[in-house]
Amino acid sequence: MINRLVEQIKAKKAPVVVGLDPMLSYIPEHILKKAYAEFGETLEGAGEAVWQYNKGIVDQIYDLVPAVKPQIAMYEQFGIPGLIAFVKTVDYCKSKGLVVIGDVKRGDIGSTSAAYASAHLGNVTVGANTFGAFNEDFATVNPYLGTDGIKPFVDVCKKEKKGIFVLVKTSNPSSGEFQDRLVDGRPLYELVGEKVNEWGSDCMGDDYSYVGAVVGATYPEMGKVLRKVMPKAYILVPGYGAQGGKAADLKPYFNEDGLGAIVNSSRGIIAAYKQEKYARFGAEHYDEASRQATIDMIEDIASIF
Amino acid sequence: MINRLVEQIKAKKAPVVVGLDPMLSYIPEHILKKAYAEFGETLEGAGEAVWQYNKGIVDQIYDLVPAVKPQIAMYEQFGIPGLIAFVKTVDYCKSKGLVVIGDVKRGDIGSTSAAYASAHLGNVTVGANTFGAFNEDFATVNPYLGTDGIKPFVDVCKKEKKGIFVLVKTSNPSSGEFQDRLVDGRPLYELVGEKVNEWGSDCMGDDYSYVGAVVGATYPEMGKVLRKVMPKAYILVPGYGAQGGKAADLKPYFNEDGLGAIVNSSRGIIAAYKQEKYARFGAEHYDEASRQATIDMIEDIASIF
Repeated sequence: MINRLVEQIKAKKAPVVVGLDPMLSYIPEHILKKAYAEFGETLEGAGEAVWQYNKGIVDQIYDLVPAVKPQIAMYEQFGIPGLIAFVKTVDYCKSKGLVVIGDVKRGDIGSTSAAYASAHLGNVTVGANTFGAFNEDFATVNPYLGTDGIKPFVDVCKKEKKGIFVLVKTSNPSSGEFQDRLVDGRPLYELVGEKVNEWGSDCMGDDYSYVGAVVGATYPEMGKVLRKVMPKAYILVPGYGAQGGKAADLKPYFNEDGLGAIVNSSRGIIAAYKQEKYARFGAEHYDEASRQATIDMIEDIASIF
Repeated sequence: MINRLVEQIKAKKAPVVVGLDPMLSYIPEHILKKAYAEFGETLEGAGEAVWQYNKGIVDQIYDLVPAVKPQIAMYEQFGIPGLIAFVKTVDYCKSKGLVVIGDVKRGDIGSTSAAYASAHLGNVTVGANTFGAFNEDFATVNPYLGTDGIKPFVDVCKKEKKGIFVLVKTSNPSSGEFQDRLVDGRPLYELVGEKVNEWGSDCMGDDYSYVGAVVGATYPEMGKVLRKVMPKAYILVPGYGAQGGKAADLKPYFNEDGLGAIVNSSRGIIAAYKQEKYARFGAEHYDEASRQATIDMIEDIASIF
């Protein structure tokens, strides 16, 4: 799957992923109204609204970008109907040829981590049959529990040719509280980066590993160091746009081949119509606003090369 | 909710939580057969089997223990039908008066962490209505992202009088890879423990905080230190039984009042009938084997006081 991600990035000339992190406050009135008319102001109504909203955006961006990254928390808050919308979104994006990165930040140990890996990347056996539950192509994973937590994911990645992005240095202001603490004179995130390298070393695609890393756009100096620590890891970069990361800061995340990183934007694209810059589209054409914002982002990122 | 947990622990004289972490391989043939007959060898069939299996156990243990801890990964692997079984289990346990600790190990930042907190402990607003999606009483949370990741959970805990257990020192063999690394001469888990103390300080029940901690039974020396670092945090202790933790090792996790810790056992109780010790019950009476194993565990833990 890392090979397909790289191919798609090359083909679309866009190291960009669109974060499908819907909030009800982003969803235009006409979509909410229709969903509530059908299902009421219920979790089912919310799930339907989220799904229709996503579908509109995906239809406008699938030809522009290689990948999408649905954030499962935004679906999980609506319970079972929300997760049904998540499944529909994943399936629809895949039918449109998009690589799907499930931003699930799961992490546990042993058989429990194996169950998460089965849920999101692999299959589960029931009697004589096997089923994939959520069927993403990649998942994000939390490293705090160490190798025991990551290994079951790596095993599934090998078997299914899927991938993970391990949280190394996150984009948020307090990410340094633990991640930046010095261990033998070096920040913890570097040690995690070294482990990412190690976990990914026997799990390689053509040029990059199935095991990638998350490094926030908001810490470019650290991105530069981590790029060297993990030369074969694809870096998923959140924090561009709404969180303050700028294109000029992103160069260090890429390798000299112009590959090695993929930059996420969520709110900046899916709720573009709410920005002054794209207000001309109006809520009715929120999906076209998202398309324009995607085009602009791809151009912005391209400007650094 | 921390007050209710403490009350229940006192009333039942059992600082014990039963981990409802069902694997299909634990579920007796008669339950599987019935579920597959009705729903086929499908995710729905698996979900039904898991739910019936859980119900049998809960009916046998609800009068003995204060709390249960369903591990969501074990349900998530069966997709939507698995999560429906999770919801049924949570609701049923609550109807039986049990405190429900959702072992979800979620953790993200800002609005995303807020969405997880809403999903598991709080409510979500849809139009004029509010709904709780999963409705656990407590949730486990991963601290790697720092205060930004925890604060939204703490806010919901305050509002809804719910609680969290933050992963501090996990029970698995490789937990030391990052958690034990020395920062300014002290292990990282101690710094996380101090933060737990800080996060929980303005979020107190009568004697203990809404913000607790996870510290594995397999590291009693560390448990001793962490007990002192976080005097007001309830400690959720996994790793007893199947993972090798012994009752004699658990004393340091408790305060002098005999409170302050609650010990989990999953496989050792829910799959007790598979152990030689309880084989006499047979698969047909797996639930009674679980009851006996629970009684034995409570006695074992009581022996340390």
